[in-house]
Amino acid sequence: MQETSVKDITRQVADYVLTTTLDDIPDDVRKEARRALLNYVGCALGGSRHPAMDITIAALGPYAGKSTAAVLGRGEQFDPLLASLLNGISSHVHDYDDTTPGNYIHPTSPVASALFAYASANAVSGKELELAFILGFEAVSRIGNATYPAHYDAGWHSTGSVGVFGAAIAIGKLLGLSQQQMIWAIGLGATQSAGLREMFGSMAKSFHPGRSAQSGYMAALLAQGGFTAGSHSIEGPRGFAAVQSANYDLSVITKGLGADFELRVNTYKPFPCGIVTHPTIDACIQLHRQYQIDPARIAAVRLRVAPLVKDLCDKKHISTGLEGKFSAYHAAAIGLVRGKAGLAEFTDEAVNDPAVSSVRAKTESIGDKSVSEDGVRVEVELTDGQKFNKDLEHSLGNLKQPLSDSQLEQKFRDQATALPGRQIEDLIASCWRVEELSDVRELIALAVPKG
Amino acid sequence: MQETSVKDITRQVADYVLTTTLDDIPDDVRKEARRALLNYVGCALGGSRHPAMDITIAALGPYAGKSTAAVLGRGEQFDPLLASLLNGISSHVHDYDDTTPGNYIHPTSPVASALFAYASANAVSGKELELAFILGFEAVSRIGNATYPAHYDAGWHSTGSVGVFGAAIAIGKLLGLSQQQMIWAIGLGATQSAGLREMFGSMAKSFHPGRSAQSGYMAALLAQGGFTAGSHSIEGPRGFAAVQSANYDLSVITKGLGADFELRVNTYKPFPCGIVTHPTIDACIQLHRQYQIDPARIAAVRLRVAPLVKDLCDKKHISTGLEGKFSAYHAAAIGLVRGKAGLAEFTDEAVNDPAVSSVRAKTESIGDKSVSEDGVRVEVELTDGQKFNKDLEHSLGNLKQPLSDSQLEQKFRDQATALPGRQIEDLIASCWRVEELSDVRELIALAVPKG
Repeated sequence: MQETSVKDITRQVADYVLTTTLDDIPDDVRKEARRALLNYVGCALGGSRHPAMDITIAALGPYAGKSTAAVLGRGEQFDPLLASLLNGISSHVHDYDDTTPGNYIHPTSPVASALFAYASANAVSGKELELAFILGFEAVSRIGNATYPAHYDAGWHSTGSVGVFGAAIAIGKLLGLSQQQMIWAIGLGATQSAGLREMFGSMAKSFHPGRSAQSGYMAALLAQGGFTAGSHSIEGPRGFAAVQSANYDLSVITKGLGADFELRVNTYKPFPCGIVTHPTIDACIQLHRQYQIDPARIAAVRLRVAPLVKDLCDKKHISTGLEGKFSAYHAAAIGLVRGKAGLAEFTDEAVNDPAVSSVRAKTESIGDKSVSEDGVRVEVELTDGQKFNKDLEHSLGNLKQPLSDSQLEQKFRDQATALPGRQIEDLIASCWRVEELSDVRELIALAVPKG
Repeated sequence: MQETSVKDITRQVADYVLTTTLDDIPDDVRKEARRALLNYVGCALGGSRHPAMDITIAALGPYAGKSTAAVLGRGEQFDPLLASLLNGISSHVHDYDDTTPGNYIHPTSPVASALFAYASANAVSGKELELAFILGFEAVSRIGNATYPAHYDAGWHSTGSVGVFGAAIAIGKLLGLSQQQMIWAIGLGATQSAGLREMFGSMAKSFHPGRSAQSGYMAALLAQGGFTAGSHSIEGPRGFAAVQSANYDLSVITKGLGADFELRVNTYKPFPCGIVTHPTIDACIQLHRQYQIDPARIAAVRLRVAPLVKDLCDKKHISTGLEGKFSAYHAAAIGLVRGKAGLAEFTDEAVNDPAVSSVRAKTESIGDKSVSEDGVRVEVELTDGQKFNKDLEHSLGNLKQPLSDSQLEQKFRDQATALPGRQIEDLIASCWRVEELSDVRELIALAVPKG
């Protein structure tokens, strides 16, 4: 099956997607897909009440089509294209969704956001959804790898600009497109590839996976109807790679296709904040749990972190939750005081909590070249002179220290506060057994507030 | 008002757009805007029945919102966002819309497609529409000039990738955005900038101005609602210019702003085909009119064209209308046989018309460095040895030889065949007197088939 020429790589991608069945996917990859979907649904719930969502609904709801599709975490229904956009915003707005560390893409949001919108408006089995998701994720990851780092370094937010391929392919798979239609769908996706890193720090960052989900979905619909596009949208002389990436190696797209799966190198953030603060949080939560340290008795906290981490997170005097996401001092304080770091620990309220800000004020950090960017050394000194230490080589959430299933579930519960407890547990169970569902709407019904 | 720093050029553009009134626009520019709008409406009518339109309506119509907006040339109504997309496709699908030769952009399609959709769903006066159009056109042209040629040469179809700025700005002007909102609208437009030249030769080319109209419209709506975006989307280190253009000069965007208008260098294609064939068509139509040559008596047609033109249009043995658009031989034949070159001359039927194909077969062309790319030398020899010659320096439609108002009207009539003759004349009159309309819906009502 595999061909070495990159001259028709778009066609090769289309063929792979169209001929692959769930039986072709190894069990460990299918399991990882379910972990990614569980994490995704939790993130979508966690972001579903963000102001970016309310604004989008108020601005675009009046233009929505027939209400056939659910938005995860919300009571309203819209047409599936708008629902795709909204799912994409909610699932990325807290920067809490999954990441493939090899290319900094968040591949699940654009793919799953379109898929759940589609599956809420159409009869789709759990196996069909899982397969379409795996194929879309794989396409995003491989096209991302082929153009990384040049594409990202140039300033593209690849979660959007590459994510659109995954959405087009995943929806195209569910629509049962022909080879020609799938090639057009990829082309119509490519020619909507967009998303600038200049938007980081604004709501528009979360707009990127949302719009790419919506654009990919639209690409597949148009292609199904016979709307023609170029046949070499990835590899052509004026195609995606040539235009949007100064360097690329398209052979990466098909190397090991069907045998190696990028879902195996997907990671899940344990904390909704800058990834470089994660080792500090992880270590401080461990100290909190191991020694039940009374925050009032803390005299000093000393962090040794990689010099880059010191540079990026040297924010001590802060007043907003957003600033807290990039503060090593806040990271230490919430770990020691609260023993957790969920969405509630990155609100303005948490940053200004006297217990937290008191420990934050007593925290110091030193840049130390002997500490890796994924590690930390923490020393906590109490008022009586007693000292506790924790050295970490790899932070929780790293590929070498992945979140366990139960940690993923806990992260899910932390974000699903809009739902009643019983429904949360049913929804978690439904995500794990998605392959058994004859209609994914059974799961989606649990992901929206009742009544 | 004018500032030399490009460090906040996005803000400067927003300020210019928000503070400018129609009284600030010179009369000749306002007149040219009306010519551009007349030409645009004609092109939208001409493309309104193209298969790309039927496919898009069939594929996306089921997802459309409330039917508040008209599509030019069609009976159906959709929500204004989908109507924007459809207007963009129809007005560009025959490659017959206007062009600014300095940057190869078709600026009117993305801007006016959004505006007419908006104005069909909301009360907008003719003066408001004309002003918003001029400002959107100006933004597209200036951002296009600032990034030309690097942006286009890289493979971007700038009609889409730059057009989105004009749509966002034009709709933002009608929505009465604040400065902050307009900056966000430009940012949300920038981060949807897309469109690959790899799509040329497929329907996806016409999708570009349509999607940019729709994306720009959406950007303005979201910004109005408070959806935040980066503040330096044009000039920032990860903004549009840096990411999507290897070279650029942003000072071009504000140079002479408010005094020099790019509408003054807009051109209108007299013929719906490759621009390099235009001199041949023009010359042959002149010969047809001047000498009433009987095609049956033609023994030979000899063209001397620029070597580049010879290269690009050396298609003699053709069978489809699309091929005819890039054939110097077909260009000569239709000019001499039919004395015109409208949409009907680039159908499969016209290409296979025996009278046309007979003259085409007798036509030869020579590349001649002494002939300019915008010129031609034609010699027609009859069976009795009589010869007629026509040398052209500049073709009709060139900036030095612009289409007259009545030629624009004739082009309009040629494309408006879906409407009854009386309605066509009323619509032309309505376009000319757009400034007098208290509600543009009066004009739009004439641009859709009755009943």
